Amino acid sequence: ADACQELVGRSWFNLASFVVIVVNALVLGLETYDKTGLVSDAPLRTVESVCLGYFVIELVVRFGAHLRDPVGFFRDPWNVFDLLIVVAPLVPGVRENVTMLRLLRLVRIVRAFRLFPSLRVILVGIRRSLPGLGSFLLVMVLVLYGYAMVGWMLFGNAYPDRFGTVGQAMLTLFLLLSLDGITDALQAGREVTGWAVVFYVSYMVSACYLLTNLLVGVVMNALDE
Amino acid sequence: ADACQELVGRSWFNLASFVVIVVNALVLGLETYDKTGLVSDAPLRTVESVCLGYFVIELVVRFGAHLRDPVGFFRDPWNVFDLLIVVAPLVPGVRENVTMLRLLRLVRIVRAFRLFPSLRVILVGIRRSLPGLGSFLLVMVLVLYGYAMVGWMLFGNAYPDRFGTVGQAMLTLFLLLSLDGITDALQAGREVTGWAVVFYVSYMVSACYLLTNLLVGVVMNALDE
Amino acid sequence: ADACQELVGRSWFNLASFVVIVVNALVLGLETYDKTGLVSDAPLRTVESVCLGYFVIELVVRFGAHLRDPVGFFRDPWNVFDLLIVVAPLVPGVRENVTMLRLLRLVRIVRAFRLFPSLRVILVGIRRSLPGLGSFLLVMVLVLYGYAMVGWMLFGNAYPDRFGTVGQAMLTLFLLLSLDGITDALQAGREVTGWAVVFYVSYMVSACYLLTNLLVGVVMNALDE
Amino acid sequence: ADACQELVGRSWFNLASFVVIVVNALVLGLETYDKTGLVSDAPLRTVESVCLGYFVIELVVRFGAHLRDPVGFFRDPWNVFDLLIVVAPLVPGVRENVTMLRLLRLVRIVRAFRLFPSLRVILVGIRRSLPGLGSFLLVMVLVLYGYAMVGWMLFGNAYPDRFGTVGQAMLTLFLLLSLDGITDALQAGREVTGWAVVFYVSYMVSACYLLTNLLVGVVMNALDE
Ligand code: NA
Ligand code: NA
Repeated sequence: ADACQELVGRSWFNLASFVVIVVNALVLGLETYDKTGLVSDAPLRTVESVCLGYFVIELVVRFGAHLRDPVGFFRDPWNVFDLLIVVAPLVPGVRENVTMLRLLRLVRIVRAFRLFPSLRVILVGIRRSLPGLGSFLLVMVLVLYGYAMVGWMLFGNAYPDRFGTVGQAMLTLFLLLSLDGITDALQAGREVTGWAVVFYVSYMVSACYLLTNLLVGVVMNALDE
Repeated sequence: ADACQELVGRSWFNLASFVVIVVNALVLGLETYDKTGLVSDAPLRTVESVCLGYFVIELVVRFGAHLRDPVGFFRDPWNVFDLLIVVAPLVPGVRENVTMLRLLRLVRIVRAFRLFPSLRVILVGIRRSLPGLGSFLLVMVLVLYGYAMVGWMLFGNAYPDRFGTVGQAMLTLFLLLSLDGITDALQAGREVTGWAVVFYVSYMVSACYLLTNLLVGVVMNALDE
Repeated sequence: ADACQELVGRSWFNLASFVVIVVNALVLGLETYDKTGLVSDAPLRTVESVCLGYFVIELVVRFGAHLRDPVGFFRDPWNVFDLLIVVAPLVPGVRENVTMLRLLRLVRIVRAFRLFPSLRVILVGIRRSLPGLGSFLLVMVLVLYGYAMVGWMLFGNAYPDRFGTVGQAMLTLFLLLSLDGITDALQAGREVTGWAVVFYVSYMVSACYLLTNLLVGVVMNALDE
Repeated sequence: ADACQELVGRSWFNLASFVVIVVNALVLGLETYDKTGLVSDAPLRTVESVCLGYFVIELVVRFGAHLRDPVGFFRDPWNVFDLLIVVAPLVPGVRENVTMLRLLRLVRIVRAFRLFPSLRVILVGIRRSLPGLGSFLLVMVLVLYGYAMVGWMLFGNAYPDRFGTVGQAMLTLFLLLSLDGITDALQAGREVTGWAVVFYVSYMVSACYLLTNLLVGVVMNALDE
């Protein structure tokens, strides 16, 4: 147990784990080139098995470091996360589901955030800025919902694929935040009703104003802390 | 009256009103899925009636809290707003207008800003930043108007649907602020006159520069306060 | 002379001049609706003549305020600007040129900046931020010129309308800063050479990075002052 | 040697070198107009030879200034850079490669950064902000890689030209950061699977949030220093 604790504290232990994650991720990526015959499948599978083996050993070492206090091991959400990734592919139902297994293999990349301190700092910063986002996001959702309802009233019959339901209208208006195709959308709207100009222009102005407030404000707050 | 005053001060009273608003908004949204047979109409109407009933009761309670000073009740613009929403659908002329009634039902969502303190803070922040926007918006309008006049001179005859009048030209140039389709617009302009390059490039540079100054400046001022 | 000086100092004098400018601008705008028969031409011409008359009177009053020091009148660039606008339409050569006359009438809108103090503050702020922009703009031009030369080497033969000369290539790359049609541009480039991916992606990254530095940096500096 | 040292310190020496670079760059640009018969080739070649001659003289003078300490001359990376540009076109293999020679002539523009102090300040600022970018860029790459893998699973078969391999999928998603054609991409994705909405919307939100954090954060840090 003491040896494990010492091992976990060593920086090369974290570095090795990080390298294994990167190698594992690259293997997953190389597999996507498989059909083109660029790489052969067998060595990739071998490398991935080695990565998984290292990963299990790492988990055992981490558990060993907590041997005198096994409950404490499960108090760190990262440990629970690691355990789930290892155990989940063995559960019946998951075991047969190819998509599920693929996603589980992919999720191992997330472990990079555990092992790289500067990444953890960023995660903490993002988590800390989320509460400040809360009420601004609520305003955004209210604005989006209100405009979606009005959009459904105006264009629901003329463009059922874009404004047929309030959900579809919200998606359409959300995508319009990218300012992509706003000219075409306004042109199509004007063929239905003259209110289209008021609708779209007021939406763009208020949405852009809110988004600027939202993003700049939250980022500034995050930097202050 | 005292009981009403106490009730209005309770936090669960505001929370209940907020929940009713959200339920009411969801009902309005579910109605848009009506044609697809996903939900039946009758229960939705019932839920909305209950929401409206609660809303009237809330208004009466709020008025009851002001029973000793009925004029003070009308001093809070939110109370006047609430009263209007309840009374307006009963006015003849509005009563028969389906679109008007729909909009009035939709406007109830705005009450969320009354009941959620953090939303009110945002509203106050936006209202406070508007005067600072004033002179920048005036500059933007002057720039837009000037370019629209020049655009009408250059392209008014060639593209009457885009630059036919100064109003249409302002809309075209406003939409160009989204940078959507700028390449096509310039291409079309060059077929008319070589000045199109000068026109569009100088417009993009000055508009983007003004917009950046406008948005960042105002947001920074708002954060300072 | 003293009466003139007193008049110029009055706030309603500036306000009246501002109102005349706005009326004048609106008249110019209404003229663009002329073909549709929405407004008749004669009253517009009358209103504009009244505006011009007021403008000449204003100029005379301002000169009257400087009667004891006529040279000082010409030291204020705004006075020179006003005089030019009045005199230019009388110069032979300009007098016959319809476009020139139209532009001169339009340029009167710029006088709004003289009369509205908060607009003048913004002009001063923009002028003060320009020197800081200088070296960043030089870097932008160097980057644009370098990429334009490489773009001409890569795509000059394949797409002569977009990369045929270094000037055309600079315009193409400048418009690409709007991120409009980047997917199509890259697709077209890849059909010529595999270097297109390196070319476009490195251009987008470095241009966006420079632009962000440029705009945010300069605005922050302007706010500090 | 002393005369050389004095010469290098003079400001007009740097200015002359800068002017020669600009003239050289303009000559390279004018050459691209060659086919149109706008300019004749011979004078351009002459001007470029003069520029190259001046450039060699400048290099000799700079070496002369370091005559008592020839090793110190090579300690300044700019001197090594200048020497390489002069020597490289003479190396066999490069000498015959037209593209290589053209690029080497183009690379001389980079020397402007050596000679203009304010440009050097910007270079230093950019280099100083890069380490802070490091971990944010790592997060961006991880997010891009993860979404590319999921995109390949979802759309790899349906759109092999956009999501056929993880590399192609990363390029597609990177270009989508420009928000160009997001509506079309989502539309195409929805024809394959309903998960497309979740995939694209979550990608846009997290990528935009990360990018804002990335750019604003780093720029602010750079301004603080
Ligand atoms: Na776009
Ligand atoms: Na765009």
